[in-house]
Amino acid sequence: MSVLVVGSLALDSIETPFGSVTDAVGGSAMYISAAASYFINPIRLVGVVGGDFPKEGFAFLEQRKIELEGLQVVKEGKTFRWSGRYHYERDTLSTDLNVFESFDPVIPDSYRKSRCVCLGNIDPVLQRKVLDQMEKPRVVICDTMNYWIDRKMKELRDTLRLINVLILNDSEARLLSREPNLIKAGRVIRGMGPSVVIVKKGEHGALLMTEQMVFSAPAYPMENIFDPTGAGDSFAGGFAGWLARTDDMSEENLKRAVIYGSTLASFCVERFGVEGISDLTYLQIQDRFREFKELSRFDED
Amino acid sequence: MSVLVVGSLALDSIETPFGSVTDAVGGSAMYISAAASYFINPIRLVGVVGGDFPKEGFAFLEQRKIELEGLQVVKEGKTFRWSGRYHYERDTLSTDLNVFESFDPVIPDSYRKSRCVCLGNIDPVLQRKVLDQMEKPRVVICDTMNYWIDRKMKELRDTLRLINVLILNDSEARLLSREPNLIKAGRVIRGMGPSVVIVKKGEHGALLMTEQMVFSAPAYPMENIFDPTGAGDSFAGGFAGWLARTDDMSEENLKRAVIYGSTLASFCVERFGVEGISDLTYLQIQDRFREFKELSRFDED
Repeated sequence: MSVLVVGSLALDSIETPFGSVTDAVGGSAMYISAAASYFINPIRLVGVVGGDFPKEGFAFLEQRKIELEGLQVVKEGKTFRWSGRYHYERDTLSTDLNVFESFDPVIPDSYRKSRCVCLGNIDPVLQRKVLDQMEKPRVVICDTMNYWIDRKMKELRDTLRLINVLILNDSEARLLSREPNLIKAGRVIRGMGPSVVIVKKGEHGALLMTEQMVFSAPAYPMENIFDPTGAGDSFAGGFAGWLARTDDMSEENLKRAVIYGSTLASFCVERFGVEGISDLTYLQIQDRFREFKELSRFDED
Repeated sequence: MSVLVVGSLALDSIETPFGSVTDAVGGSAMYISAAASYFINPIRLVGVVGGDFPKEGFAFLEQRKIELEGLQVVKEGKTFRWSGRYHYERDTLSTDLNVFESFDPVIPDSYRKSRCVCLGNIDPVLQRKVLDQMEKPRVVICDTMNYWIDRKMKELRDTLRLINVLILNDSEARLLSREPNLIKAGRVIRGMGPSVVIVKKGEHGALLMTEQMVFSAPAYPMENIFDPTGAGDSFAGGFAGWLARTDDMSEENLKRAVIYGSTLASFCVERFGVEGISDLTYLQIQDRFREFKELSRFDED
């Protein structure tokens, strides 16, 4: 199943207790497409960068065999920049939208029949615009964040009606549903459109909720989170990649997709930026998938 | 395996969004022994109540076949009283130690050879005093809380050296270890004595940590927590009861014990006070155990 990924491409400057990087290649579309690329081809990326986007960024995408026909390069513009510092929580130090501010996602004709659409965390108006250009995708997966819930609730609600799977974190789920209880929040959000809601809970794992089922995925036990940037997007990419590879939307397979998402997220945070998901082998991914299985397995006596 | 339970017996006044009760029978020893009683006999209780402890309290303990030889009744005294209100968090409204203030746990001779000792959340000095009276128990399970970590760290550290299994919640684990990361916290706390650390995370389930292994237990998905009082103690009781029933300290069996603990805690919070764990059948417990299994089960493709 072909996968369309729309989201941000960025240059991130990150400080964590373990080190720092400046202008590292990042952005939601970068992490999503790299993570998904371990499972399926083609991955088609739609996004925008400025003339300052480094050669290494393009090289990385090409190495991961991401199709770039939909990547807009604004030569005279500057790439979206984000800088942040992690201690126990995250502080955003600065956000410069640059070329991303006037991003108009144009889906190349050859991309319009992509069967799996993965909408990174961007303005819900743009997410909607992407969907308007698509021809009956089989599954639409969408990420969002508190920024849009706070500022564009109406537009987000409009987009949610067109979504099959919404991925968000626990505080965003509470904010969107106005329900502190996550199980109730899942039900309320499913009422807004998506039949599948996935709540990411960081060190506590993730919840997958459908009408019939709640699935609780464990978190990979880590003593040190080297750099949390991109973990959520890697999750979405691993999830989407597995679904696209298998073309199977059954609840059993959605569970596996959540574990593959968690697997890619766990690799992501072990190194800085996209490094953690830059050169994995399928064997490494399989091994970690099995570690996840062992983490929550128990037998009756 | 015989089980000795030492802890508080209380009269609790509780307000939750779903209702309120006044002077309901409670306390850590009450919940622990009731939960454990579904798995094993005898359960031997050591604690203290005042002359005001109601007939229903004794009747409840007798109905659950708890042995009461070690229950001190101070006729002229008043039972320990706690009152609290739950909204999203918990507010303690008042705590009156009453007879509990001068509680001196005397272990009857016939109890000293109990093979499983379960120390409810009481002063670590008293916990130590209990252990001093015991003859080589096979397993010592201990609960504690922030109150003692803040006020009696030195005494708690002394007690921890004598413990096999420490059960505490996530904020307590962080406070005790001075580590925000729970996996690291588990390792630091194991360094203080207990070879097994269980971190309860409420709606996020529980972590079981040994030298070799991390096990992630899911939380039972609930839209409404009717009354959270006693959930942690019911967890400890279910855990201890299963271990005592099976006399098997293997890692596989510790995992099952965590799920039985989670099972009893989930029943506890479905009703007010001890009601939720007052008249379960073993079949109900088995059914919920299997629901827990289904919650985190996934298969490879």
